[in-house]
Amino acid sequence: MNPTSAAMQTFRAIDVIRKKRDGGELSRDEIESLVNAYTHDNIPDYQVAAWLMAVVLRGMTRDETAALTDAMLRSGELLDLSSLSAKKVDKHSTGGVGDKTSLVLAPLAAAAGVTVPMISGRGLGHTGGTLDKLEAIPGFNVNLPVTQFRRVLETCGCAMIGQTAEIAPADRKLYALRDVTGTVESPYLICASIMSKKLAEGIDALVLDVKTGSGAFMKSEQDAAFLAQLMVETGERMGKQVVALITDMDQPLGNMIGNALEVVEVVDILRAEGPEDLRQLCLELAGWMLHLGGVCDSVAAGKKVSGNLLASGKALEKFIQMVKLQGGDPHTIDDPTKLPKAQHTTKLLSPKSGYVASVQCEQVGTACVILGGGRERKEDSVDPAVGIVLHKKVGAEVSAGEPLATIYYNAEPRAARARQLIEASYLIADSPPRQKRPLIHRVIEKSGEKN
Amino acid sequence: MNPTSAAMQTFRAIDVIRKKRDGGELSRDEIESLVNAYTHDNIPDYQVAAWLMAVVLRGMTRDETAALTDAMLRSGELLDLSSLSAKKVDKHSTGGVGDKTSLVLAPLAAAAGVTVPMISGRGLGHTGGTLDKLEAIPGFNVNLPVTQFRRVLETCGCAMIGQTAEIAPADRKLYALRDVTGTVESPYLICASIMSKKLAEGIDALVLDVKTGSGAFMKSEQDAAFLAQLMVETGERMGKQVVALITDMDQPLGNMIGNALEVVEVVDILRAEGPEDLRQLCLELAGWMLHLGGVCDSVAAGKKVSGNLLASGKALEKFIQMVKLQGGDPHTIDDPTKLPKAQHTTKLLSPKSGYVASVQCEQVGTACVILGGGRERKEDSVDPAVGIVLHKKVGAEVSAGEPLATIYYNAEPRAARARQLIEASYLIADSPPRQKRPLIHRVIEKSGEKN
Repeated sequence: MNPTSAAMQTFRAIDVIRKKRDGGELSRDEIESLVNAYTHDNIPDYQVAAWLMAVVLRGMTRDETAALTDAMLRSGELLDLSSLSAKKVDKHSTGGVGDKTSLVLAPLAAAAGVTVPMISGRGLGHTGGTLDKLEAIPGFNVNLPVTQFRRVLETCGCAMIGQTAEIAPADRKLYALRDVTGTVESPYLICASIMSKKLAEGIDALVLDVKTGSGAFMKSEQDAAFLAQLMVETGERMGKQVVALITDMDQPLGNMIGNALEVVEVVDILRAEGPEDLRQLCLELAGWMLHLGGVCDSVAAGKKVSGNLLASGKALEKFIQMVKLQGGDPHTIDDPTKLPKAQHTTKLLSPKSGYVASVQCEQVGTACVILGGGRERKEDSVDPAVGIVLHKKVGAEVSAGEPLATIYYNAEPRAARARQLIEASYLIADSPPRQKRPLIHRVIEKSGEKN
Repeated sequence: MNPTSAAMQTFRAIDVIRKKRDGGELSRDEIESLVNAYTHDNIPDYQVAAWLMAVVLRGMTRDETAALTDAMLRSGELLDLSSLSAKKVDKHSTGGVGDKTSLVLAPLAAAAGVTVPMISGRGLGHTGGTLDKLEAIPGFNVNLPVTQFRRVLETCGCAMIGQTAEIAPADRKLYALRDVTGTVESPYLICASIMSKKLAEGIDALVLDVKTGSGAFMKSEQDAAFLAQLMVETGERMGKQVVALITDMDQPLGNMIGNALEVVEVVDILRAEGPEDLRQLCLELAGWMLHLGGVCDSVAAGKKVSGNLLASGKALEKFIQMVKLQGGDPHTIDDPTKLPKAQHTTKLLSPKSGYVASVQCEQVGTACVILGGGRERKEDSVDPAVGIVLHKKVGAEVSAGEPLATIYYNAEPRAARARQLIEASYLIADSPPRQKRPLIHRVIEKSGEKN
């Protein structure tokens, strides 16, 4: 018996599950053993699913969270990008509905001279995933090996891939399992998942976009701030510059939801068009990336430079360069009507005149999953073409019979269920909403915070 | 699309998991959909594991418990034993360490003229299982089809099998999954599991042995009483006579733990020998079975008749008859030294003189699992030969160097770990324990209770 299998024998997953179930604090060893055993397929999905639910309902201490992040980070390779002279900065969002900022930010920051080694995830729960969106571009390869990832980075300053087998393999498995077991919404698991993956990228700084509102995993601003603080602290422990922006996800971001549709809207933004909320958030986050990346003295300067790079078409050029380098068809970016298209569309009409008081954001995300734009089970494949276009967002005036949204679908029964959800998500009031929610709620830096 | 698959499509397991995770009450439809989907392999183990953990930590209402019991019961066939004229009575224990009373009670009650259609389970967590014990008898077939089960019942008045594919298939799958996901210890899940299986047997009455103490799933008497009440109520709703005895499981029952070893001790009891605690509990439970089975006017009379059936050898005769009818080798009962034997034994000596103050019962059960006598993963097989014989139980005087227990093992590293656990489970004090825990704590009948 070799030492590894002897160690395996003394670790009993069931003991760790029960300890957490009963509210105990797990040791670094116990967490490491569980993570390593799962990474190497030595414990089954169902045991980890039970453990994850126990973590969701019992929570974790800061020590446990750090141990989990560390075990996941060290489950694979750490990228060494020190040969690249520019500062390496990444951005990560906790996930929302219609949140396609990553596809704008990577080329935008790269166009400004920051290196962006972005490793992203797939759709989780009711939220979309950057990789699923990129794969809506015919030919786009998110599965580059590390050597090729480095080459794309060197050539164009940004590259966007999925987790490779080498990087945080524990996170890849856990992420897929959480998605289908109702164990997404835990700040400890979210922190460990994000930070393990991001810290393995060899970055110098990280801009976190922590969502709050009805479409976010953290519905309340307080919960979002808790998660943001947890991640900023964990990042600091590892010697990285980390800032977290708490941003609004009380309605979908932009107007388009669904993988190919979101690429269309990304191209709009890169052409200095597109919806205002999405553009503003992109500029804010880009401002921080350029500032932390050392190419601008302040966030304000970073925003200004970013605006110019959109207006000049430099960011779009960079996006097309990256698409080409990663095997994607650049013609679909020049002409987004060439992206995958759903066979059918149907319009959802307003039942009355008034003002949109709210759009229940998670329901819209779930509707997109039901259409086939996300996964109900981890082995499901995603339909890039389906989705939803919102014609009216919060505050908009609407007349009875005017379209609120258009559903893009390929299967009738799915469309019917999605329609019900979207209908239920719209609240139409007689007068316009009195208060508008801010796009940026707070900024959390270091151990303190700043507004 | 047929109606079933349409119904499947509107049921999303993830929604049910999340609702329970967030403390909501599930509808009868939601519970039924989940149970049916799992029974038909339409949802994976990992989703059900997460749901089970959410149930453990969030609990269930009485309506949810009833709906779960009912869905599990109706997941398969209900036996119709109305052609058998004698009353059908079964006994069920919530599980303990060294609890082999079922093997005594089935033939004992049958010898008295009660029909005992006993459907049992396998080891769960740290506790042993009746089926695993029966399978320690070479040739014994616990997998009889229903027609053959009925034939054995007609011939000898008792039969002992595992859940067939026909009876409560939902419970069979859930039981195996709970065992390996740390989701055993929930009164709601335990109630639904036991009652669904028992109510499918076509019985008239049921005697429940609800364990309490350090080796029981319900450590406190209060928790045990809660479960007992839950089961008695559920049984009453279905029109059955149900009584629950809260009995002691603060140390192993009898002296032998491990599958073949427990058969040895069963034969001792059937020969009117064996340890006093085990004999007394068997007589108490048999008394109730004979009383509810209508062959004795009172529990006291039932105990007396039972004592006579042990003394006369009639119960042993009945056991041998059943073993033969179910394909078991009767010579191993005539001469238990022919049962499977471990290759090695090692004695655990007392480190000091004094009195046994306590034996941490769950640790002893876990030690037996580690030896291979139970399962750490649901696909594990069980070693019938391994186990533990206790030479000293609570209250016994012991001298330094005198054996406390003997470990029967087939693998050295397992024996070392088991030894540590058993050593740690013994507490030796200078003076004898002041109070003896009663064997029978309470009796719960109907919606009230009786001492």
